[in-house]
Amino acid sequence: MVVTKKIALRTKGECDLIDISREVREGVLASGINSGTVTIFLTGSTAAITTVEYESGLISDFQNMWDQTVPRNIPYEHDRRWGDGNGYSHVRASLLGASLVVPFTDRTLALGTWQQVVVVDFDNRPRSREIVLQIMGE
Amino acid sequence: MVVTKKIALRTKGECDLIDISREVREGVLASGINSGTVTIFLTGSTAAITTVEYESGLISDFQNMWDQTVPRNIPYEHDRRWGDGNGYSHVRASLLGASLVVPFTDRTLALGTWQQVVVVDFDNRPRSREIVLQIMGE
Amino acid sequence: MVVTKKIALRTKGECDLIDISREVREGVLASGINSGTVTIFLTGSTAAITTVEYESGLISDFQNMWDQTVPRNIPYEHDRRWGDGNGYSHVRASLLGASLVVPFTDRTLALGTWQQVVVVDFDNRPRSREIVLQIMGE
Repeated sequence: MVVTKKIALRTKGECDLIDISREVREGVLASGINSGTVTIFLTGSTAAITTVEYESGLISDFQNMWDQTVPRNIPYEHDRRWGDGNGYSHVRASLLGASLVVPFTDRTLALGTWQQVVVVDFDNRPRSREIVLQIMGE
Repeated sequence: MVVTKKIALRTKGECDLIDISREVREGVLASGINSGTVTIFLTGSTAAITTVEYESGLISDFQNMWDQTVPRNIPYEHDRRWGDGNGYSHVRASLLGASLVVPFTDRTLALGTWQQVVVVDFDNRPRSREIVLQIMGE
Repeated sequence: MVVTKKIALRTKGECDLIDISREVREGVLASGINSGTVTIFLTGSTAAITTVEYESGLISDFQNMWDQTVPRNIPYEHDRRWGDGNGYSHVRASLLGASLVVPFTDRTLALGTWQQVVVVDFDNRPRSREIVLQIMGE
C-alpha cells in the first residue's frame, strides 16, 4: 500500500531549520498503514532533509558548521554565470541530501526522543517549500 | 511484505565504526523476502549510518576527516547550554545522516565486495545503540 | 510490486558528475508501477549518489568544495597501507552516501525542475559503474 502526503511550508532561508516531525507523524497515522517506511523528500536544489535534536543551541551550531565548511563569502561559478548569489546554497544541499527514510512499526516512528526530522533551507531568501511523504507498507 | 529486525550493540563512541553488514545480510535472509529494500535506521541524534571499505587505514582516515571538518575543540552552543560536551557529535551525525537504503534481489544485497554497512558513533562516551532494519518487498 | 533495473556507465573519476535523471525516469516508466519509490544505490566504495542542479558552474563549485573539505594532497593511512592513492575518494564517498530514495506518483518523480539525480565518482581513475534502481510500489 502506498499513500502520498505533502507538507507545504514557508522558510526564512539562510540555513533555516524547520521541525516537521509532527507532520510526518500525523501523515503516518492518517495513512492507515501499520508498518513500513516513510520517505521524506525535498523537491528543489537549495534545501535538504536530515534529523537533529531540535534545540536552539544545536540549531546555531549546525548553522555555524555550514559557514565554516561551505562558506558564503568565497567565489562560486554558479553566481558568476547566473547571478543568483546562492551557489553555496546549492553545494550545501547536495552534500546534505534530499531524502531521508524513517521506518515505523505499529504506527510508531523509529525516531529517538531527541531526534527530530528537519527541513534545512540553505537558500539566500525566504522560500515556499513542498515536502513529499511517501508512506509505504501494510 | 514488511519485516522489522533490530540490531543491538555497544559502541566506544568518539567516531567508533562498527561493521553491521553481517547482521543486515542475516536479517534479509531470515525475513523470507526475496527482492526489495532494507532500510537501515539509527535511532538517536549522535550517531549515523553509511558505507565504507572497512579496513583500519580508512577507519583512521574517516575519523581524521571529522576532526578537521567538524572539530571537537571549538565552542558549541549546545555544550554551553546543556553541558553535555557533545555538540560536535550532534552536528556530525546530522551531516552524515540517520538512514541508508540498500536494495536486494534474490536475497542478495547490492553491496560491493569492499563496501560495508557501518554505524558511526560520534558521541563522546560509550553508548548502547539500537538499529532498526525495515525489510520490505515480495 | 518490486522491479529491479540497472544502469551501467563509464566515468572519468576525479569528482566526475554524471546526470542519470533520464535513466531513472525511464526505469520508473518501464516498471509499470504507478506510485511508490525508486531507491538509487551505488555499488562500490569510491562513488556516491545525490541531487544537484546540473549546470557547469555548480559542477565546478561542487568539485571545488570537495577539494577544500576532503583534500587530495594530505596523507591518508589507506594509501600508506595499500598504495591505491585514493584514500580521499573513499572518505568523500562515505560522507556523501550510497543511497537516494525518490518518490513518484502517477509515474511522475518528485524531482524539481532544476534537480537532477547524479552519480559522483570520486575515484582517482576512470571506472565502470553499475547503479541499481529498486522500484517499489503499486
